[in-house]
Amino acid sequence: MLVDGLFGGTITASKLLKHGDFGIGTAEGLNGELIILDGVAYQALADGTVKVLKGDEMLPFANVNVSNFEGRVVLPGLKMDDVDATLAKELSYQNTFVAIKISGTFKAVQTRVVKEQQRPYPTLSETASKQQVFDAKNIKGTVVGYYTPALFQGAGVGGMHLHFIDAQHQFGGHLLDFESDKVKLSWQLLDGLDLNLPIQDSEFIKHKPSDMGIIRQSISESE
Amino acid sequence: MLVDGLFGGTITASKLLKHGDFGIGTAEGLNGELIILDGVAYQALADGTVKVLKGDEMLPFANVNVSNFEGRVVLPGLKMDDVDATLAKELSYQNTFVAIKISGTFKAVQTRVVKEQQRPYPTLSETASKQQVFDAKNIKGTVVGYYTPALFQGAGVGGMHLHFIDAQHQFGGHLLDFESDKVKLSWQLLDGLDLNLPIQDSEFIKHKPSDMGIIRQSISESE
Repeated sequence: MLVDGLFGGTITASKLLKHGDFGIGTAEGLNGELIILDGVAYQALADGTVKVLKGDEMLPFANVNVSNFEGRVVLPGLKMDDVDATLAKELSYQNTFVAIKISGTFKAVQTRVVKEQQRPYPTLSETASKQQVFDAKNIKGTVVGYYTPALFQGAGVGGMHLHFIDAQHQFGGHLLDFESDKVKLSWQLLDGLDLNLPIQDSEFIKHKPSDMGIIRQSISESE
Repeated sequence: MLVDGLFGGTITASKLLKHGDFGIGTAEGLNGELIILDGVAYQALADGTVKVLKGDEMLPFANVNVSNFEGRVVLPGLKMDDVDATLAKELSYQNTFVAIKISGTFKAVQTRVVKEQQRPYPTLSETASKQQVFDAKNIKGTVVGYYTPALFQGAGVGGMHLHFIDAQHQFGGHLLDFESDKVKLSWQLLDGLDLNLPIQDSEFIKHKPSDMGIIRQSISESE
């Protein structure tokens, strides 16, 4: 429902972290990009700073899992567009969810960070002009994200959905592009999805969704 | 993946029943329509008979929940096409999953039952000509099924997906149409979906899905 502008938070960060120590998301009002790594939730903000969430912040959307990476490969260089094909050499995964972690040194990283919106909220695509884009070069850090099968787009973002946080926890966001130096690509095949919907939230449960075709198209375009 | 013809079973009936006492599904090879009611799994077969599953049967797809119906309304008459609108008078539900039970006497019920397929399996739409259609009049029984938001079509069948079993457990199937006498409509709003994918099954994990647009269209047509 983020696509339709339902940016109100429906779960606290501390409650979310009970379900996993690794993940991605956003905060109330579409306030930045979340990166959850080693049990800490970092919030990359549109002003270029990164905060650690205290726990009482409300979140409208997030994906988390309990990390238990089962496979890894060290690569001399990796481009964002090649993550799919690189992973496919290692395992069959396209019909399920996969947690993906890439850590090491990056030659170039480009992120975008969504900007906090005020009520009445616009739609997700209307916020695109407010997004900030950031570039970094020769930076150590970690890519945190998920692969979601196209069939389950809507429950998550179909395909690869990757965020980034640097080793100093001072630079991060939703990944638009990267090119790495030597990195370690780790993966964890997940056997499903435990989808939790905020049915007690009247805005959520009473919302009349926009046409699904439009929603799916908007999600693809925003990627 | 049923749409693409992956009819091989991936979970036993007894294991499925640990996750719920109410639900619907099908069996290995697309062998009939399952109705799970009061913890018993009934299998309506294409020859018009109904069996009780023993527990060791393998199932390729099912939806179950632990029943705890929170609301009910007694109606003098209900048509299948009116279930959506009738429920909407009672609660807001369109953005989440709902378990639906309708019990009482039915003036007319029309079901279809899919027929067991042999390997190599055809696609779901290719099996349509093999389906059997059954009609019953003035029959006591129960409608068992779910509402799935269109956004989650793929994880389940979008919209209403209803099966039927008569009170004698001798007539059942996937509902094509019904018109009731006096019935009780019960509902249970579910706060999400615990999706379990058979990632250990090599047929599942290695399958290259057909185009999503085609899949979604096929599902809609088969309804």
